[in-house]
Amino acid sequence: TQEKADRHPKTGIVRGLAWTSVGGETLQIEVNKMPGKGDIDLTGQMGDVMKESAIIAMSYVRSISQEYGVDQKAFKECDFHIHIPEGAVPKDGPSAGITMATAIFSAVTGEKVRGDLAMTGEVTLRGRVLPIGGLKEKLLAAKMAGVTEVLVPFENKKDVEEISEEIREGLTITFVKSMKEVLEHALVNQGRK
Amino acid sequence: TQEKADRHPKTGIVRGLAWTSVGGETLQIEVNKMPGKGDIDLTGQMGDVMKESAIIAMSYVRSISQEYGVDQKAFKECDFHIHIPEGAVPKDGPSAGITMATAIFSAVTGEKVRGDLAMTGEVTLRGRVLPIGGLKEKLLAAKMAGVTEVLVPFENKKDVEEISEEIREGLTITFVKSMKEVLEHALVNQGRK
Amino acid sequence: TQEKADRHPKTGIVRGLAWTSVGGETLQIEVNKMPGKGDIDLTGQMGDVMKESAIIAMSYVRSISQEYGVDQKAFKECDFHIHIPEGAVPKDGPSAGITMATAIFSAVTGEKVRGDLAMTGEVTLRGRVLPIGGLKEKLLAAKMAGVTEVLVPFENKKDVEEISEEIREGLTITFVKSMKEVLEHALVNQGRK
Amino acid sequence: TQEKADRHPKTGIVRGLAWTSVGGETLQIEVNKMPGKGDIDLTGQMGDVMKESAIIAMSYVRSISQEYGVDQKAFKECDFHIHIPEGAVPKDGPSAGITMATAIFSAVTGEKVRGDLAMTGEVTLRGRVLPIGGLKEKLLAAKMAGVTEVLVPFENKKDVEEISEEIREGLTITFVKSMKEVLEHALVNQGRK
Amino acid sequence: TQEKADRHPKTGIVRGLAWTSVGGETLQIEVNKMPGKGDIDLTGQMGDVMKESAIIAMSYVRSISQEYGVDQKAFKECDFHIHIPEGAVPKDGPSAGITMATAIFSAVTGEKVRGDLAMTGEVTLRGRVLPIGGLKEKLLAAKMAGVTEVLVPFENKKDVEEISEEIREGLTITFVKSMKEVLEHALVNQGRK
Amino acid sequence: TQEKADRHPKTGIVRGLAWTSVGGETLQIEVNKMPGKGDIDLTGQMGDVMKESAIIAMSYVRSISQEYGVDQKAFKECDFHIHIPEGAVPKDGPSAGITMATAIFSAVTGEKVRGDLAMTGEVTLRGRVLPIGGLKEKLLAAKMAGVTEVLVPFENKKDVEEISEEIREGLTITFVKSMKEVLEHALVNQGRK
Ligand SMILES: [Ca+2]
Ligand SMILES: [Ca+2]
Ligand SMILES: [Ca+2]
Ligand SMILES: [Ca+2]
Ligand SMILES: [Ca+2]
Ligand SMILES: [Ca+2]
Ligand SMILES: [Ca+2]
Ligand SMILES: [Ca+2]
Ligand SMILES: [Ca+2]
Ligand SMILES: [Ca+2]
Ligand SMILES: [Ca+2]
Ligand SMILES: [Ca+2]
Repeated sequence: TQEKADRHPKTGIVRGLAWTSVGGETLQIEVNKMPGKGDIDLTGQMGDVMKESAIIAMSYVRSISQEYGVDQKAFKECDFHIHIPEGAVPKDGPSAGITMATAIFSAVTGEKVRGDLAMTGEVTLRGRVLPIGGLKEKLLAAKMAGVTEVLVPFENKKDVEEISEEIREGLTITFVKSMKEVLEHALVNQGRK
Repeated sequence: TQEKADRHPKTGIVRGLAWTSVGGETLQIEVNKMPGKGDIDLTGQMGDVMKESAIIAMSYVRSISQEYGVDQKAFKECDFHIHIPEGAVPKDGPSAGITMATAIFSAVTGEKVRGDLAMTGEVTLRGRVLPIGGLKEKLLAAKMAGVTEVLVPFENKKDVEEISEEIREGLTITFVKSMKEVLEHALVNQGRK
Repeated sequence: TQEKADRHPKTGIVRGLAWTSVGGETLQIEVNKMPGKGDIDLTGQMGDVMKESAIIAMSYVRSISQEYGVDQKAFKECDFHIHIPEGAVPKDGPSAGITMATAIFSAVTGEKVRGDLAMTGEVTLRGRVLPIGGLKEKLLAAKMAGVTEVLVPFENKKDVEEISEEIREGLTITFVKSMKEVLEHALVNQGRK
Repeated sequence: TQEKADRHPKTGIVRGLAWTSVGGETLQIEVNKMPGKGDIDLTGQMGDVMKESAIIAMSYVRSISQEYGVDQKAFKECDFHIHIPEGAVPKDGPSAGITMATAIFSAVTGEKVRGDLAMTGEVTLRGRVLPIGGLKEKLLAAKMAGVTEVLVPFENKKDVEEISEEIREGLTITFVKSMKEVLEHALVNQGRK
Repeated sequence: TQEKADRHPKTGIVRGLAWTSVGGETLQIEVNKMPGKGDIDLTGQMGDVMKESAIIAMSYVRSISQEYGVDQKAFKECDFHIHIPEGAVPKDGPSAGITMATAIFSAVTGEKVRGDLAMTGEVTLRGRVLPIGGLKEKLLAAKMAGVTEVLVPFENKKDVEEISEEIREGLTITFVKSMKEVLEHALVNQGRK
Repeated sequence: TQEKADRHPKTGIVRGLAWTSVGGETLQIEVNKMPGKGDIDLTGQMGDVMKESAIIAMSYVRSISQEYGVDQKAFKECDFHIHIPEGAVPKDGPSAGITMATAIFSAVTGEKVRGDLAMTGEVTLRGRVLPIGGLKEKLLAAKMAGVTEVLVPFENKKDVEEISEEIREGLTITFVKSMKEVLEHALVNQGRK
């Protein structure tokens, strides 16, 4: 089935977690890299804060890409498109930051991202991971989507401890402080260079 | 008559289905490819969500075009114009996504699209086909326009099953999960490379 | 007198018909082609729908221009300016579409347009002519301006039949389905290549 | 005194006539041509209709400039700035059209414009002169500013005939149908090539 | 002290006078010229009229710069930034025009501007100096800031004559009709070429 | 712990102080310099005044960079991104000016900035440091974040003197009049060339 296929490692697709008025939801963030001239398209009815998150994620990936052997011309000679389905649903907030950064990194490097993993967290320009809200609902949504591991900001540790065992069971919750840790967990080859 | 001519296979024209307050309607999406510098014009009083759909459809086609032998210079050295008549009627929503992607693909490759076919469905950047609303009204409109086959998102299967036999009879309804399947059905030469 | 001069064939000027709250009116659409870099200026307090009509008309002319022997560099190395006097009167709607397309075609090719002719109709990107409203008032305005022939969308045939003989007498009404037919009637040399 | 100096022929400065809630006023339209890349700056708190008038005036001058021996590179390699003092007073409407066209023509060609002349009239892209309002107040303002001749649209002839002899005496009123006539009267060397 | 230093001649800094709801104030207009591509940055929460003043001032300086031996490439190969502290206070109106023109001229030519001088006046594109308001409050502010000479538009002469001797004493008030006169008074070397 | 790490000298990161409705806060301003074409990205939900501050800070650094041996091509061939976490919190005002200028200077030159230091102050285009508000709350926030020295505008000296000894103790408060002084204190190598 398609659901199973979704859990195969892929390039440029990463599963994020959103918190809406009707509960948590998983979002598959999609990134395409195409021959172009350095333009960035953002679609999926993103609000201002989420658009800034995408720009921050892009800059972060550019700033570390040399370290991972990426030809810097890619950022001048390619266009990038970041999309979050479903296209008619407005989305906002900074909590998709690390998911977008991981999806961009994967599109840029060609590295595959684990399909059994979801993540949530704000990213800063220097790759720090900042805490987010709505954790209980997000973990529930991850579980319902068949995810087995979730990356959560280290500064949300105390929030996780307040969530009942019942919800957490069956989920590996990994706390992360930086994008480097996120990439180590999310990439199939563990971000090894 | 013109109506019959409309059902001949054409390049850059694909029949979509819209759902308005006064019922379903067919929309002929038109795409022109012209010598230019990579600009994209969107006309037909498209709303924000529909404009994003067009951008997503364009990026999707770019991302698969190499696979179909399209010279990548086309996207830098051509302008594309996507128009949905009638020009004074505001239109919005993501459900023209697969229709726009098919029309763009046809304009880019020169492949003809079947004139006896209509389609509806949201497209994602990676070519997944997502479910849409207003199916009953759209199928009625397709039938009244003399369409014989309609492509419908796989995830709308249960909605189709709830529609009366009377409406569905005379229409072949084909469920699709991905743009590749859409192209296989819509192109006269079945998307064979 | 100036009025008579206005009926001499000209390049880049075509008479359209508008329908306002105080009745019908004729509008002389003016197009200038100048050495430039492919920019398009639209003036005359055009509303959104009318601006889109101008863009559609431009794309249509580009798409057929090769067929008429037009050097494609013209669209990169010229600027086009489309103006509808009077400059302080807001105008909108799609019904100037075929008039704008004809004026652009004339400016691009240098072909003269008949001065004793007026026209009204929406144009699509592929050159289909779609029906418009306010026909009775428009025909009256055409007659008062001394026009002898009016091009009207084929799909408005039944509307014309409902207009009294008295209004129609003295006017040749020609029904058109496509821009090719419009050009055949409007150009002094009948669009012959 | 400065007032006398203002009546010396100048390049790129032309006296227009405005009609405000507190009566008529003269406006000295200033145009600078500078080495640049084809940009146009419009200042003086111009409203939308007046900005369009400036763009129309510019296009008109471009379209006739070759005929007057102007090197066409000027429009690509120069910037133009059109300003109407006083900078804090909002201005709008199409009636400065022929004044702006004359000032631009003068800046482009270096031809001097008569300082004892004022003018008012809408200009179209093809150089037709269309009628304007507020004539009585404008003529009074021209007289008070020491102007001796005023160019007025031909279609305003009947309006002028309704204005009392007392106001008109001492003013030569010249009716114009086209920009070519405007230039013939306004340029010191009568627009002779 | 800093206050004394502020009165030393400087390049690209000129003292203007503003009139606010709480009285007059001095504003030090700062201009930086940097290697670039002809961009102009305007900061200091300037309103629309003030931004236009800055653009007018820039065009005026460009138009006279050749006369002062300035290499015209400067305007293509440099960026200019015009700032008026304090950054959080909204400012508007045309009366900083001659101050901005002087500061730009100084930045462009490297000529020093007198530090014991303040000025106020609208500038036109051709360098005329137009009258402004709030003179009494501005002169008081200039005096309190230790300024010894103030440049005032000639057309404000009658307003100055109505201001009490007490306020004017200790201030040299110089009336100016044109930017050339402003530069002669403001530049340390008197604008001599 | 991370907190200790944050106090190590870093490049392109400087600690500012903000004053919000719920008290003072420290903000780590992050600047990335990347190969590019001179674009500047500003993220962190900055308001208009704060965005202008960033542009002023950038221009100031450009204007002094030659003096510090910076290759001027950097400003044409690099993009700069200035971000202030947390991404969802709106921020405004000019008081982050000197912090942004210091972070940009550090990113441009590669010089490390002291991690035990915080600062607050408006910057002008010429590098003057202007006074700001909310000092008491900002100093408290600095102390709670483990900062040992705070740079404060000289013109705020009297405000500091009114703050109780208890709040100030343990903090070295250094008054600064110019960006040069700021850089001398903030850079690990004291801004020595
Ligand atoms: Ca916002
Ligand atoms: Ca959903
Ligand atoms: Ca929207
Ligand atoms: Ca319809
Ligand atoms: Ca609209
Ligand atoms: Ca009229
Ligand atoms: Ca308007
Ligand atoms: Ca006035
Ligand atoms: Ca305004
Ligand atoms: Ca103040
Ligand atoms: Ca603001
Ligand atoms: Ca916080």
